[in-house]
Amino acid sequence: MQQQSPRPRRREEHELEFSRIVAFSDGVFAIAITLLVLQINVPSHISSDSDLAHQITHQHGDLIAYAVSFAVIGRFWVSHHGNFAMLRAIDPRLVVVNLVYLAFVCLIPYPTDLLGGFNDSSVSVALYALVVGIASLLALMMVRYTRRKGLLVPAAAAQAAANERAMIVPPIVFLGSIPFAFVIPSWTPFLWLLLAVDGRLRS
Amino acid sequence: MQQQSPRPRRREEHELEFSRIVAFSDGVFAIAITLLVLQINVPSHISSDSDLAHQITHQHGDLIAYAVSFAVIGRFWVSHHGNFAMLRAIDPRLVVVNLVYLAFVCLIPYPTDLLGGFNDSSVSVALYALVVGIASLLALMMVRYTRRKGLLVPAAAAQAAANERAMIVPPIVFLGSIPFAFVIPSWTPFLWLLLAVDGRLRS
Amino acid sequence: MQQQSPRPRRREEHELEFSRIVAFSDGVFAIAITLLVLQINVPSHISSDSDLAHQITHQHGDLIAYAVSFAVIGRFWVSHHGNFAMLRAIDPRLVVVNLVYLAFVCLIPYPTDLLGGFNDSSVSVALYALVVGIASLLALMMVRYTRRKGLLVPAAAAQAAANERAMIVPPIVFLGSIPFAFVIPSWTPFLWLLLAVDGRLRS
Amino acid sequence: MQQQSPRPRRREEHELEFSRIVAFSDGVFAIAITLLVLQINVPSHISSDSDLAHQITHQHGDLIAYAVSFAVIGRFWVSHHGNFAMLRAIDPRLVVVNLVYLAFVCLIPYPTDLLGGFNDSSVSVALYALVVGIASLLALMMVRYTRRKGLLVPAAAAQAAANERAMIVPPIVFLGSIPFAFVIPSWTPFLWLLLAVDGRLRS
Repeated sequence: MQQQSPRPRRREEHELEFSRIVAFSDGVFAIAITLLVLQINVPSHISSDSDLAHQITHQHGDLIAYAVSFAVIGRFWVSHHGNFAMLRAIDPRLVVVNLVYLAFVCLIPYPTDLLGGFNDSSVSVALYALVVGIASLLALMMVRYTRRKGLLVPAAAAQAAANERAMIVPPIVFLGSIPFAFVIPSWTPFLWLLLAVDGRLRS
Repeated sequence: MQQQSPRPRRREEHELEFSRIVAFSDGVFAIAITLLVLQINVPSHISSDSDLAHQITHQHGDLIAYAVSFAVIGRFWVSHHGNFAMLRAIDPRLVVVNLVYLAFVCLIPYPTDLLGGFNDSSVSVALYALVVGIASLLALMMVRYTRRKGLLVPAAAAQAAANERAMIVPPIVFLGSIPFAFVIPSWTPFLWLLLAVDGRLRS
Repeated sequence: MQQQSPRPRRREEHELEFSRIVAFSDGVFAIAITLLVLQINVPSHISSDSDLAHQITHQHGDLIAYAVSFAVIGRFWVSHHGNFAMLRAIDPRLVVVNLVYLAFVCLIPYPTDLLGGFNDSSVSVALYALVVGIASLLALMMVRYTRRKGLLVPAAAAQAAANERAMIVPPIVFLGSIPFAFVIPSWTPFLWLLLAVDGRLRS
Repeated sequence: MQQQSPRPRRREEHELEFSRIVAFSDGVFAIAITLLVLQINVPSHISSDSDLAHQITHQHGDLIAYAVSFAVIGRFWVSHHGNFAMLRAIDPRLVVVNLVYLAFVCLIPYPTDLLGGFNDSSVSVALYALVVGIASLLALMMVRYTRRKGLLVPAAAAQAAANERAMIVPPIVFLGSIPFAFVIPSWTPFLWLLLAVDGRLRS
């Protein structure tokens, strides 16, 4: 796992601002990940116990979509946390890029709901891959920006370059899976598991 | 961008209180911004894949409203964070005004939902402009209050005065757009883009 | 306002625990207050612009209930924050009482929804008064407990005694208004305004 | 209660990471516990005041489920907070296990909703016991992992071993109650009260 923190470091000023941005981002991640549960449909009327079992089984798509999105947002959070740990300073533009990134993270419950309800539909699979793909692309851009602008602690340069290389994979996998969604929608989510394989090879 | 923090400063006592108020406000911003996604309607029944695509396209208003409100709440948060970074002390009245301000920020998901569903309706456009306009007016009043009461760190006086001048624009744009909502409802949201132009001219 | 903090103080150990309990409570307050907006109903179908205006006006009960509950939870938070600022230590029993108290605070969106929908119903007015009354009673019991167990900083003793006296009023007003809910339901919420008068007399 | 913190300790580096993980976990607990209120159904149409009273009484299952899950998540949080207070360091694997654990905590509102709606159904009682049982099993595994990997502060060893022994009970009670759910569904939740008895015997 590449999110190890560098040696202790200082952020002499803007301490409050830094911690508020981190706290706000953490809050947004925590809320987005927790709202996922609201997408799981609960039957409103049942005729018998076996009917309830049948309806719940019928909605297994909701539970799979919950698990996938929990893993996705969880991984985004771990990665964000690793990257922000290497920062020496924050500039106003980074605040804005971070907000745009968070806007896509917060949007994830929406395609999750579609994916849970219509998991064999090309449109919902493609939309899911698009939203997650854009979010991972923005995460990559954010890391690249902080490195180029010299916002990182010097000791973290090598780590940051390695993170950046690793972060090229998720946008390629998600955005690259979109064409497959229109041919083999039900199988496309399995392509996303390439990321788990990639993570295992690196660690 | 005007939300730069002044030099390092002290808040000798009430440290815990200060950080709790900031943390509470950040929490409210983070939750309000994340709840926006719940306003996006998800189709419950589809007949085919192209029907899903059609229904999603039909609900593009929800996505636009999501983007607008994410930008609005995000900007409120950045501004709040810049203004609170200049505070030397907090008094009980500021706590109350901050709560009233947050009540309007938290309300934003409601007119967002209306705007997303009925984006060519004068009533929903006007109500959106009213809620956001009042929130931005309260933000301005809060900054003015902290300056007049001497709650700011001395070094931040010039910055605070500049912030205050900049913060006059959003209430004028939003509240001033209300009459337009009754004549050209679909075009009124474009008037709000004046704020983006204003931000660019200042930075 | 009685929630002034005493002089700076120390909580030598359990610092992490203390701050986690405060952060958790703040999180719960922030989320409960923000969820209130979800109780405001949004029309799903409208025939015209004036129909939308009519439907929104028809739901003014939801907006009033939102405002009342925002004020109630906001005041609970201010009070909680003032009382926890006086603590020297936390014991396991206080953690449990605090959780029970938070369970009632978190429940408030439920009677708020009932009150918003059926504001002239004895049952919804009485239930609202009951939930808020129990929460305010638990807050009082919590302050009393911390004083008796010697969990307060010594310098805060006088302040705590004053807080305790002030905190007797809300449970009396809310629980005492329940019989009125069955005679004059629509007017009962106005009784709650006695608290605003009480607050003004004390400050 | 076993969640007392050991003597003051240091986590020389990774301080930011540590506090972010704790803050994120706290956020998730706070949100999951607050979302429970959304599962309580609010009547949409009533014919009279006694009809409202009747409908609310009819939904007492929702209120009981709310109370049970508030107690469950609250206890999970107290336990998590006690266990993390004993940590000297965090490793990447613990971050992942913690996320999987949180995924089950966040899921609790879903079986809570089922339990509230269908409290005499074997399926909903069994599903509730399964989700809570797995979450408590993961909590136990997490504590065991931190002890074996030497991630605890040395002074906390005895306390951690005691916690671990105590944490064997909840998974046994919840998972062990699943067969009962298929024989005496309505009575199974009373088996869970064994945990309260167990807690009382230990304190």
